[in-house]
Amino acid sequence: MIIIRKIQKMQDFSRKARIKRQSIGLVPTMGALHEGHLSLIRQARKENDLVIVSIFVNPAQFGPKEDFRKYPRSLARDAQLCRKEKVDVIFHPDAKEMYALNHKTYVSVSGLSDCLCARSRPGHFKGVATVVAKLFNIVQPYVAYFGQKDAQQSVIIKRMAQDLNFALKIKVMPTVRHKDGLALSSRNAYLSKQQRKDAVVLSQALKFAELLIKGGLRDANRIIERMRQRIQRKNSAKIEYVSIVDLDELMPVKRITRDCLVALAVRVGETRLIDNIIVCPKN
Amino acid sequence: MIIIRKIQKMQDFSRKARIKRQSIGLVPTMGALHEGHLSLIRQARKENDLVIVSIFVNPAQFGPKEDFRKYPRSLARDAQLCRKEKVDVIFHPDAKEMYALNHKTYVSVSGLSDCLCARSRPGHFKGVATVVAKLFNIVQPYVAYFGQKDAQQSVIIKRMAQDLNFALKIKVMPTVRHKDGLALSSRNAYLSKQQRKDAVVLSQALKFAELLIKGGLRDANRIIERMRQRIQRKNSAKIEYVSIVDLDELMPVKRITRDCLVALAVRVGETRLIDNIIVCPKN
Repeated sequence: MIIIRKIQKMQDFSRKARIKRQSIGLVPTMGALHEGHLSLIRQARKENDLVIVSIFVNPAQFGPKEDFRKYPRSLARDAQLCRKEKVDVIFHPDAKEMYALNHKTYVSVSGLSDCLCARSRPGHFKGVATVVAKLFNIVQPYVAYFGQKDAQQSVIIKRMAQDLNFALKIKVMPTVRHKDGLALSSRNAYLSKQQRKDAVVLSQALKFAELLIKGGLRDANRIIERMRQRIQRKNSAKIEYVSIVDLDELMPVKRITRDCLVALAVRVGETRLIDNIIVCPKN
Repeated sequence: MIIIRKIQKMQDFSRKARIKRQSIGLVPTMGALHEGHLSLIRQARKENDLVIVSIFVNPAQFGPKEDFRKYPRSLARDAQLCRKEKVDVIFHPDAKEMYALNHKTYVSVSGLSDCLCARSRPGHFKGVATVVAKLFNIVQPYVAYFGQKDAQQSVIIKRMAQDLNFALKIKVMPTVRHKDGLALSSRNAYLSKQQRKDAVVLSQALKFAELLIKGGLRDANRIIERMRQRIQRKNSAKIEYVSIVDLDELMPVKRITRDCLVALAVRVGETRLIDNIIVCPKN
């Protein structure tokens, strides 16, 4: 496994690979790898000749009051994990390498970037779409892997890749969870012991929604209300949003008549956590 | 020479070419080809294994009151010219192929897109940057060729390609002019006989600026004032802007102490024409 820090070197590597017809699977990450990332890496390993994991804490997707500085960084440990999964290359540029001083270009996906997480994180998805477009051009993958946990991100990146005609496939892999249901996230590391216990309420609320729908409830607002009540029982939990939206346009639905995304963002103490499930009223 | 109308087919063609290590030169156009375009095509022909000319009148770069509908379209003639220049492929998609109904993604280059032509054409350069990003991903060229006549466009595309890490080179070729100095443009076809005569005032004003600078004048505003006076002598000419800006950031300069862009946009009758030169105070 090699670690590449320069864009030019990464592009040269990928160009040679493409000439040799070697397929590249890209797993874009911000590091602090956990089993969620590893599930993406393993899928990439199964399906491609070469696996490239990018590790870059992207300043453009953090707001001024967000956790850019304290976001966990652990390259040595991440590299160890990648080596174990037989990753070929870690692409690990620094911020100066990725954003020149006179950087002026941004990619934005309208509509999809105004709802759900975007309300409390203005500019976040513009930062995500921009860095992912850059990574696609730098690494030139055949397939790029993302986690369903960041549902809105996945929808936006799929749309971006399609709209800008990137010649690659996007695969979205299922959320990996702890035994008690909490979705794996690098930000879980911020939680105190009590908060970690309380945080399970996110996935519990989602399971509860699933149950209500299985039981025949179709009114989205009533389901959301019941979920909110459930979450509010935890003292440390502060709801940012609980939404039920369609899968393509991420627009709120009134009645659940087809597959929908149930998504939520909750602050547990100071830590902002997100989770989601896709619900199928027909099952 | 073949004409390709589908994105998928174009991408397949380019992927195979890249595997064979054939270099692709792309000349993006809106058709209505003239000697200006042909100079780009000839340069591409000299420097690449394959030459691809895209012909697409891009709706996203026209304002609601602009000339999208009447913009000259002449595929048969364009194809003849391309064949003569030994072009390998014309990529000629229709608007539905390029912009799906649910298209949501745009590329914007901040700062550079707010000055000069952008003032009277809001959204124009966002449309340009977006379609060029799409063409880069579809055609996957090694080199893309643009004309200096669209100076602001060239600066924006260069910055976009650099910022988003497209693995290609941008080459900007000199403006081609009629004998009397008028820059070649597909929009010259809109001019009446008298307007065609009056239109020469654009290049005359630029030459006049060059002369003033050679004569030692360095005050940008005084030069602009003299140019404006000269243009206003023509009854059919209505100035939109006359600007002197630096080459990187396109910001107005007060004194001409290094190479600058002198650029102007003038309506001759109803037809909006642009032109520019780079002036070098050291010469």
